[in-house]
Amino acid sequence: MTQTAAPSDSAARPRERRQRVQAAETGMAVLKALARLGGRASLTALATEVDEQPSKVHRYLVSMIEAGIVVQDSGSGHYRLGLEALYIGLAAMRQADPIRVAEPALVRLREQLGVTCFIAVMGNKGPTIVRFEEPGLPVTVNVRVGSVMSLLWSATGRVFLGLQDDAQVRRLALEELDGADAASRAALDAHDPLGALQREVRAAGCSIVIDTNLKGISAISAPIFNHAGQVCGALTALGTTGGFDAAAQGPIAIALLAEARAASRELGYQPARAA
Amino acid sequence: MTQTAAPSDSAARPRERRQRVQAAETGMAVLKALARLGGRASLTALATEVDEQPSKVHRYLVSMIEAGIVVQDSGSGHYRLGLEALYIGLAAMRQADPIRVAEPALVRLREQLGVTCFIAVMGNKGPTIVRFEEPGLPVTVNVRVGSVMSLLWSATGRVFLGLQDDAQVRRLALEELDGADAASRAALDAHDPLGALQREVRAAGCSIVIDTNLKGISAISAPIFNHAGQVCGALTALGTTGGFDAAAQGPIAIALLAEARAASRELGYQPARAA
Repeated sequence: MTQTAAPSDSAARPRERRQRVQAAETGMAVLKALARLGGRASLTALATEVDEQPSKVHRYLVSMIEAGIVVQDSGSGHYRLGLEALYIGLAAMRQADPIRVAEPALVRLREQLGVTCFIAVMGNKGPTIVRFEEPGLPVTVNVRVGSVMSLLWSATGRVFLGLQDDAQVRRLALEELDGADAASRAALDAHDPLGALQREVRAAGCSIVIDTNLKGISAISAPIFNHAGQVCGALTALGTTGGFDAAAQGPIAIALLAEARAASRELGYQPARAA
Repeated sequence: MTQTAAPSDSAARPRERRQRVQAAETGMAVLKALARLGGRASLTALATEVDEQPSKVHRYLVSMIEAGIVVQDSGSGHYRLGLEALYIGLAAMRQADPIRVAEPALVRLREQLGVTCFIAVMGNKGPTIVRFEEPGLPVTVNVRVGSVMSLLWSATGRVFLGLQDDAQVRRLALEELDGADAASRAALDAHDPLGALQREVRAAGCSIVIDTNLKGISAISAPIFNHAGQVCGALTALGTTGGFDAAAQGPIAIALLAEARAASRELGYQPARAA
């Protein structure tokens, strides 16, 4: 990396600093514009997008080509995001952690609605609680951090069953079904127990259970999606069936879904693109 | 984006331009360093990584936070790649096209080794040829752009069968096995035809067939991997069995594998990380 020596004239420094930051900001703006344009654009399109002169945008592109972040296609002369941009994105993805982005939501849900709430992610045994918040007067419930939730009878599990359609989830769900007693099975669709649950969750975009998994407990669970449109976590609120508003249009469901959507957006989920 | 007006003194411009580009380069260097450090680092670690003063690096980080590319964690004060960095990476991934990166390899293989060669990607009917190059005196072979290759008997298909372990590939392979005649089946393992082929490809890292798919034709196929470590294409060379060196350590296999590895690297494949 080449750097000119800092000017000895101290009066020049603030101006130089300001310029440097501005130049870095312009560089970032050009980079973001190239991403917004789909990762590939002509100089003209890019200059229009950032509302700058093409000659100026070109100088920034030269820097980015130098850095391996942008590549110029030999045929079309168009600029596209290069390998270093891909590495930056991969590192950003590693930092996009559903637990970190959803943790503040737990505190808000507990404080604003007084509900017990938690974040679960898919573990090797099933959906597993990784963060748990409860109000001052907690509901007595036998789940805590580390608890593995039922895929078939818990709201949390149904979110994964309905929206994470992979072989592991199916296998765990079938194992659970095989080991279930008649009373539990009776709560499910007789002909297509898994399919019926999946269709229900997909239609509603969340799962609500009342006395299904635990007697006297109601729960609402909403999916957290990642940049690839995959469910990477579930945000769940629960309470005693008498004192917990489990209505799909009730304040708890609305707040929970809004928090799950906000967490998903923070992980790079773009519903329009994923659809 | 804030911009100061360009100075009216024309003598100042070249210096300003140079600085701006340098500042953009420093910004890109800080961004790349943050990615190299896993997407999250302290100011000290980042300054050490780019070999600059922390105060200077801090000014660039402020610009990047402004742009949404970097986020500062409230607890630790560490800096991490933010949502805009993830969007840049997603756009870069859309530009990471196995056909574009491997196309120049076809020309090199044809010119240097005089072989017929092609790129195939997984289509909905099976591995499908999307680019095809042949030497001046072509081998008469009934495959061309658009041809769907056998998953079980072609070198190209075996690369996908062995390394892209998903439900669609398995289903297509089983369909092909069901419809195969006794002579073709006899060329496969009697007890575990799919598993034996998969283990062979995984051990070799490529697939070589001699008279297996087409009488008198030998072929070597090598996988092209993407940033996620998935097979996104196959690079295949073929020739008449008499005039084509199909040895695993022969010049064709060596050149083909080197080209496939180079194409994979250009798509962001990092073998060490993927393993």
